[in-house]
Amino acid sequence: MTNQAAERIQHEGLRSKIMSAEQAAEFIKNGMTVGISGFTGAGYPKAVPTAIAERAKAAHARGEEFAFGMITGASTAPECDGVLAEANCISFRNPFQSDPALRKSINAGNTAYQDMHLSHVEQQIRNGFYGEMQVAIIEATGITADGKIIPAMGIGHCNEVLKAAKHVIIEVNAKQNPLLETMHDVYFDIGTPPNRQPIPLVKPDDRIGTHYLECDLNKVVAIVLTDAFDRNSKFADPDENSKRIAAQIIDFFSHEVKAGRLPKNLLPLQSGVGNVANAVLAGLLDAPFNDLTGFTEVLQDGMLDLIIAGKMKSASATALSFSPDALQRFNDNIEFLRDKIVLRPMEITNNPELIRRLGVIGMNAMIEADIYGNVNSTHVMGTRMMNGIGGSGDFTRNAFYSFFVSPSVAKDGAISCIVPMVSHHDHTEHDVMFIVTEQGMADLRGKSPRQRAKLIIENCAHPDYRDMLRDYFDRAEKAGGLHTPHLLSEALSWHQRFVETGDMRVK
Amino acid sequence: MTNQAAERIQHEGLRSKIMSAEQAAEFIKNGMTVGISGFTGAGYPKAVPTAIAERAKAAHARGEEFAFGMITGASTAPECDGVLAEANCISFRNPFQSDPALRKSINAGNTAYQDMHLSHVEQQIRNGFYGEMQVAIIEATGITADGKIIPAMGIGHCNEVLKAAKHVIIEVNAKQNPLLETMHDVYFDIGTPPNRQPIPLVKPDDRIGTHYLECDLNKVVAIVLTDAFDRNSKFADPDENSKRIAAQIIDFFSHEVKAGRLPKNLLPLQSGVGNVANAVLAGLLDAPFNDLTGFTEVLQDGMLDLIIAGKMKSASATALSFSPDALQRFNDNIEFLRDKIVLRPMEITNNPELIRRLGVIGMNAMIEADIYGNVNSTHVMGTRMMNGIGGSGDFTRNAFYSFFVSPSVAKDGAISCIVPMVSHHDHTEHDVMFIVTEQGMADLRGKSPRQRAKLIIENCAHPDYRDMLRDYFDRAEKAGGLHTPHLLSEALSWHQRFVETGDMRVK
Repeated sequence: MTNQAAERIQHEGLRSKIMSAEQAAEFIKNGMTVGISGFTGAGYPKAVPTAIAERAKAAHARGEEFAFGMITGASTAPECDGVLAEANCISFRNPFQSDPALRKSINAGNTAYQDMHLSHVEQQIRNGFYGEMQVAIIEATGITADGKIIPAMGIGHCNEVLKAAKHVIIEVNAKQNPLLETMHDVYFDIGTPPNRQPIPLVKPDDRIGTHYLECDLNKVVAIVLTDAFDRNSKFADPDENSKRIAAQIIDFFSHEVKAGRLPKNLLPLQSGVGNVANAVLAGLLDAPFNDLTGFTEVLQDGMLDLIIAGKMKSASATALSFSPDALQRFNDNIEFLRDKIVLRPMEITNNPELIRRLGVIGMNAMIEADIYGNVNSTHVMGTRMMNGIGGSGDFTRNAFYSFFVSPSVAKDGAISCIVPMVSHHDHTEHDVMFIVTEQGMADLRGKSPRQRAKLIIENCAHPDYRDMLRDYFDRAEKAGGLHTPHLLSEALSWHQRFVETGDMRVK
Repeated sequence: MTNQAAERIQHEGLRSKIMSAEQAAEFIKNGMTVGISGFTGAGYPKAVPTAIAERAKAAHARGEEFAFGMITGASTAPECDGVLAEANCISFRNPFQSDPALRKSINAGNTAYQDMHLSHVEQQIRNGFYGEMQVAIIEATGITADGKIIPAMGIGHCNEVLKAAKHVIIEVNAKQNPLLETMHDVYFDIGTPPNRQPIPLVKPDDRIGTHYLECDLNKVVAIVLTDAFDRNSKFADPDENSKRIAAQIIDFFSHEVKAGRLPKNLLPLQSGVGNVANAVLAGLLDAPFNDLTGFTEVLQDGMLDLIIAGKMKSASATALSFSPDALQRFNDNIEFLRDKIVLRPMEITNNPELIRRLGVIGMNAMIEADIYGNVNSTHVMGTRMMNGIGGSGDFTRNAFYSFFVSPSVAKDGAISCIVPMVSHHDHTEHDVMFIVTEQGMADLRGKSPRQRAKLIIENCAHPDYRDMLRDYFDRAEKAGGLHTPHLLSEALSWHQRFVETGDMRVK
């Protein structure tokens, strides 16, 4: 036993469970349902998945079946989703992913993927929607002398899978900063209907639970020591388009504050994953708002920098997902940050009760919107799964203001992000309040579909596509009109044209 | 002043405000935003709207503009939405309607209609999303000596419009049973972010507010006396299809109770408006469940009969919408019913916080579903508005179990309610757990799109359409497949064929 192991695992009994990743992987059998920690490239197991993948490949080489169902918090990384998908051993997967190899397996129909609202995950595990969960594999920062688990850079669904699974494997990662201890707030008491009580959180930074994850220690069958960084993907620096999108949202906030509809420090901010959403937060660094708060799912570079700069006083999230540079800033400032950042189970960060109560401002990226305000967050050309809906639905429907952002075109202009009808619907016309591109913003509140169409075409569409969209809308109005004018035989023709010619524009 | 007026309006000062509907209608001017009570044909004003319609027609005859924006609780009736739409004076309307004349005006593009989640209405009025509200017109059962308003057969958004409007007109309807007094529970304190507290409701029948609506009495500019029944539409008796749908849902409940995933008295039931949803409740009369509870939006005949029969111990709703026969049963039993039924503001009945906490079982009707589990609740053939989404989204996304029900075909088989792609999306694949037709039920929980397609085609589609659906799905899988296989050029072709030939079937 190394000193490091002794230091990280202070519970004597659990130290005796230390074994290799290969030994731990033996607990995973064909046909199981396995809960695996990990949320947006943070807090996923680093070693056991590779060992499971090797077992799967060996079994497949012997002509044996070896695949299992895998329920995570959200996306993981190449050394988790990636290696397992490449070993072709994920039969079922939910609720969110973003790994290229897994995406390929899903789109090939080899992995049955359920793309779901993150706020539903823990409730549905708890209530047996997925049958029995045989094993949970979670990453931790350490284990206390009384056997409590110090979570890593995220919590996600760990609280639930530790309770649900019959056996537990814990990876203790020496790369995770020991000072993460006490940054977590694990609320245990959400309960099952009809015996639920209100969740007693009324401010984004309220602490309502304990700092640790817990489970019946008799269930812990293996502890594996690791020493590896999280995925830590780099963000693109905000480009001109992202800056223009950010500027419009910030202008709107100023306008609402002036009109008395928003407090001076705004309302708690939620920002989806990705470069554009991150850029909006970067824009707030120079905006005239102070004492901001965050109530979000994933805390990324943009929100971290707002806290370090003293613009944001606190933030709540279920995971920390940083670029390598931001991770350095986080570790350099962790003493300053540890009472300002609180990490919670995803059932709390994404809970409709709390998002509606707090009046969160939701800002999420999209693949495309249509002229009536429906949004596609998940499918390329209607059929190919990209990542998943994640928490965007949980936040959008319950937000005080809900924004969807995207550059107006993609692929050098060959794809318009404003289309006659989205090719897949994740957020409906009933949920979307604002659409923002670098061209402008459409405020859809209190508008009929026809009014929305005019706003979205004139304010948000790229000039290259405006005439085409006006033409579609005009002809749809004249052909039959009605409440939501559409030409059914043309509504998806832009996507079909792209599939056939590689360009939505008519040449 | 009649004795009746004296009895119903016990506040001396307010009696002096009694005037004719025509006089009260003078307060409505061109360009105003007006809040009008009414929820599913209950509790809407019976006299003033007709007087406003006459004013509008006279103004139009003089060549003057006369139209106004109208925000209700939900649908009203011919003598409210109907007369105003026929007078062509509703410029804007939300959040829900079901009147033939208004529907025509909406589909013609004469009324800008915002079809929205009902849980958003009060919050968005309160926060100024619709600008200033000049007048509220609400129906009441009576007014107490201290000026408190006894609501009628529903509350809807009355609590909010009474606060928001500058002037208030009250219709006091002598037909409303005086014993309605104390059946209402008006919770005043939902507040505005960032200062909201948990809503202290943990059981469907908890009473957390007061029995009365209130407003600054100086704002009351007119009181109009009426003596007219609510709309009281008749329900169709459950037909064979409805009974088969009900039987499957009840079988499922039995199965879940046996498996320990549902309590013996189930969880609080929500039932959408309409014959099929009502039939499911009728089916529960003979089912082996007792001490049922209801937490719904509109309480209709089916739920009333469960309470009278002693099968349901209590129910919460925002409005009572009965057939004439059921109204008679309600009035005959009102002493028995008044502590078992509680009527609340729609912001409470439809609140995501409460629906999620209580674990409501949501059961809603639909126009069509597609093979991937998306649901259209609002648009016929993608363009024509029927009624609106109402509360179905509020309940579906937050329900413990969410059902959508419909007969598998309409128009003597010319329309399949299971299609390749729905022509309008109100509830996405992420939200819908169960689809039930008279053919069978598809349990979509934990399923990928391809798995859902097989279940929905084989279990729910009408036999006349199964081969066509299998053919579509097979060809979509072979053509390009991916996560959600579609043929973009054919996805909406069934609707297009119906528009052109009057039949979705290929002849």
